[in-house]
Amino acid sequence: KEKPVLFSGPCAVESFDICMEIGSTVKKEAEKNGFSYVFKASFDKANRTSSGSFRGIGMDKSLEVLQRVGKELGVPLVTDIHESYQAAEVAEVADVLQIPAFLCRQTDLLLAAGKTGKAIKIKRGQFMAPEDMQYAVDKVRSTGNENVCLTERGFSLGYHNLVVDMRSLPTMRQFAPVVFDITHSVQQPGGQGGSSGGQREFAPFLARAAAATGVDGFFIETHPEPAKALSDGPNMIPLNRMPDFLQMLKECWEMGRKYAAFKIE
Amino acid sequence: KEKPVLFSGPCAVESFDICMEIGSTVKKEAEKNGFSYVFKASFDKANRTSSGSFRGIGMDKSLEVLQRVGKELGVPLVTDIHESYQAAEVAEVADVLQIPAFLCRQTDLLLAAGKTGKAIKIKRGQFMAPEDMQYAVDKVRSTGNENVCLTERGFSLGYHNLVVDMRSLPTMRQFAPVVFDITHSVQQPGGQGGSSGGQREFAPFLARAAAATGVDGFFIETHPEPAKALSDGPNMIPLNRMPDFLQMLKECWEMGRKYAAFKIE
Amino acid sequence: KEKPVLFSGPCAVESFDICMEIGSTVKKEAEKNGFSYVFKASFDKANRTSSGSFRGIGMDKSLEVLQRVGKELGVPLVTDIHESYQAAEVAEVADVLQIPAFLCRQTDLLLAAGKTGKAIKIKRGQFMAPEDMQYAVDKVRSTGNENVCLTERGFSLGYHNLVVDMRSLPTMRQFAPVVFDITHSVQQPGGQGGSSGGQREFAPFLARAAAATGVDGFFIETHPEPAKALSDGPNMIPLNRMPDFLQMLKECWEMGRKYAAFKIE
Amino acid sequence: KEKPVLFSGPCAVESFDICMEIGSTVKKEAEKNGFSYVFKASFDKANRTSSGSFRGIGMDKSLEVLQRVGKELGVPLVTDIHESYQAAEVAEVADVLQIPAFLCRQTDLLLAAGKTGKAIKIKRGQFMAPEDMQYAVDKVRSTGNENVCLTERGFSLGYHNLVVDMRSLPTMRQFAPVVFDITHSVQQPGGQGGSSGGQREFAPFLARAAAATGVDGFFIETHPEPAKALSDGPNMIPLNRMPDFLQMLKECWEMGRKYAAFKIE
Repeated sequence: KEKPVLFSGPCAVESFDICMEIGSTVKKEAEKNGFSYVFKASFDKANRTSSGSFRGIGMDKSLEVLQRVGKELGVPLVTDIHESYQAAEVAEVADVLQIPAFLCRQTDLLLAAGKTGKAIKIKRGQFMAPEDMQYAVDKVRSTGNENVCLTERGFSLGYHNLVVDMRSLPTMRQFAPVVFDITHSVQQPGGQGGSSGGQREFAPFLARAAAATGVDGFFIETHPEPAKALSDGPNMIPLNRMPDFLQMLKECWEMGRKYAAFKIE
Repeated sequence: KEKPVLFSGPCAVESFDICMEIGSTVKKEAEKNGFSYVFKASFDKANRTSSGSFRGIGMDKSLEVLQRVGKELGVPLVTDIHESYQAAEVAEVADVLQIPAFLCRQTDLLLAAGKTGKAIKIKRGQFMAPEDMQYAVDKVRSTGNENVCLTERGFSLGYHNLVVDMRSLPTMRQFAPVVFDITHSVQQPGGQGGSSGGQREFAPFLARAAAATGVDGFFIETHPEPAKALSDGPNMIPLNRMPDFLQMLKECWEMGRKYAAFKIE
Repeated sequence: KEKPVLFSGPCAVESFDICMEIGSTVKKEAEKNGFSYVFKASFDKANRTSSGSFRGIGMDKSLEVLQRVGKELGVPLVTDIHESYQAAEVAEVADVLQIPAFLCRQTDLLLAAGKTGKAIKIKRGQFMAPEDMQYAVDKVRSTGNENVCLTERGFSLGYHNLVVDMRSLPTMRQFAPVVFDITHSVQQPGGQGGSSGGQREFAPFLARAAAATGVDGFFIETHPEPAKALSDGPNMIPLNRMPDFLQMLKECWEMGRKYAAFKIE
Repeated sequence: KEKPVLFSGPCAVESFDICMEIGSTVKKEAEKNGFSYVFKASFDKANRTSSGSFRGIGMDKSLEVLQRVGKELGVPLVTDIHESYQAAEVAEVADVLQIPAFLCRQTDLLLAAGKTGKAIKIKRGQFMAPEDMQYAVDKVRSTGNENVCLTERGFSLGYHNLVVDMRSLPTMRQFAPVVFDITHSVQQPGGQGGSSGGQREFAPFLARAAAATGVDGFFIETHPEPAKALSDGPNMIPLNRMPDFLQMLKECWEMGRKYAAFKIE
């Protein structure tokens, strides 16, 4: 039976303990609600608004932590890469390589990712028309790797604001599976001086909307104490809300799936 | 038990017969699916892109047809007004006065509408931030008329394109009930030379998204032969698809309602 | 010899004295710098964000003041109309009827304005693609009135923000003369709670840009004490800066005119 | 005496001969009109919409050609880098390293570029608020390299369209010199199936607008036969129009400079 995929974890690999706390909680709830779970954490926050912000505990140390987390939890891992030289090394640890939104047109990065043979998850650029993501998918597929999905996370609606155009979901599903990124869709780029802000209060609304529209999976960053998370705190879902959140999400996803074949021409 | 409102009918009062054909079909399906039905038709298409387009069969004749349709079907009526002098006259026939999106800041029109004591339905301007619709509501309420609702129909995302920002639904529901306009949300302003185009194929997706997000009602234009409709054909739902459409819509609306109190802070 | 037109005055007809103070100063400077001057003031602020804001001293009284100002200064007058019934009455006083941006698609208003035989100045809607303004012009021309010009005042770039797309100037000049509205182009719609804000500091930059791009005239609201102006204060040019401003503007306009025929194909 | 900088050349290093043809012509005209000339060509088109498009003749060969062109013409060179490993190698040939717009938030790339000690030219992302470019500049400066400038090339105005917000020029000049990119500002991203389109016909208008607004330099791609250029053809200036174009540009730039200190507060 088909299941939605859930990519979830903290934003960054803050420490082994925090990764395990988050991963074990989310894994349990994902299973209970019928999601296929993939643990997510970034080994490097490579495009922070300002260079004064936390970037991570280092690539080697982060990958080591990720690998331990994956083994202990028995779940696949997703993490993002930023330059093509990272693809092969990260692919030794991660099962899914994520291409950041700003980088979705970097041909070398897409090719290097594709060549690893791992699953590739490309985020839609905040500046890309939905139909143009076809070309990003094609770049990966040109390496012989057919295992590629897209992620919706909002388009620039003026300065310091993103809008999720729900039309992008069916448009992009014409050429690849689509994941809805609940966390970054409520981000406010650069909206807080030297860092990005967020509107976590809109997350349940956009999550229901995307699920009912129809998607193949979800991406959610979560933390036991979002206010203390080292990045993306303002748009994260608190860990203790994940059980209810996932239950709601699954129910709405079933609705979207039920009507997937409903077409008006 | 609370029911969602359904505002639906042809775009314009083309003729008594077509109004009755549409109205009787939609009424039956609305009742079957638990919607509160309000028949909609415009007596004048006052802001067509180009002056060569069909505007209507005249205000007096249209209002007369509307009144007969309302009486025969036993349903309330909604129609839009464009200048303040029309408010009192139209209020003798219509139960709900609709303020067009371009006119949502025209103080005289809002006040004249409010003073009729009828229910007032204000469409969000394609240029208005959701929270600024508070002021339009306040203008109507300043007349002592508390019976006012808002309608979402998309915001300008560049030229010839509208995007529905689902965040606008919970934002506007903080100060008034909100109707989702399925038909105009998939309009492409001026996108076809001298008239507006549309993307009817996205209607079911946006409809499910808005319903699951949470709204108080829906607006749908429908026609037995959209290609022959005298306006808005490209974004209308064909009449023979309304039964299935309404069933899907109601189910998604129940979902939005079930989770209406789900908040993340 | 061809001259640029300058539409300028206070935002609203606050009083005869203030109109004369502003009009006489601007007239002198306009003449000195080679502009064709048209005195501007609104008799009604019909679309204020909030109904608590100042709307004017009344239509009759305002028109009377306007007429006296025009006579005393010996200059033509421009003022805006909001509903079609106002066209004929206002045309007895004003030489140019201005159609507000939100109303640029209201067919009745455009036709009523056109039928007066006066010059018609249509502001581009914040939601209209530049090329679609052709249809607004055509509506006026359908009355036999060829004396119509357009005005650029910014397009919605997300919420609470407008952007001037300088490409709109040559695009719209293909079918009508174009005026650049320096004051409303730096408006921030609804950006200050219940009223619109403004960024007067950008006015000289956008003014130079539009003048060098090439336009047929300018629109500037000015006031001896912008902070005390009854509307649009934050985006007005202080009256004592008008002499320098107009000199700069004329020089840049000459530049735009010099290169008007410079085309790349 | 202060001179505007002109970054100009073909889009890509197509061949030594074409680079010399373009470079020698532009150099002569730049000198005649009082620009400081920097030859531009990309060694790799790393973010083409589609992977089927021309990417270049290879990094090593391109850098060798660039170096010969610089030496023969006696002019400095600018070229862009896409991943941090390229910074040091490219810095051996180029005098200015350009950071592509999509990459303007990649911390590693900015730091690697800054550490070379070369001049760094950062293009504003199509998704970045002008004031947020401060952080990109600060990242470069954190390496001790103060020689950094910014480039304006348009912001996403909906899908397949960019708008130049002239307000960004004075905003960004508060923290770094600003170059106006005439060629990419008239690009239409992804607007032609698998490649980007362009509107070269708007180039002279936007060029005059930006020059009169006030900038420190210009970026222009040119080619003897734009229709045969291996990328960006639709938005290039034909080489035989450069003499007139540069003369116009310089005159408008003088205007912007004359009024640089004109402020309204």
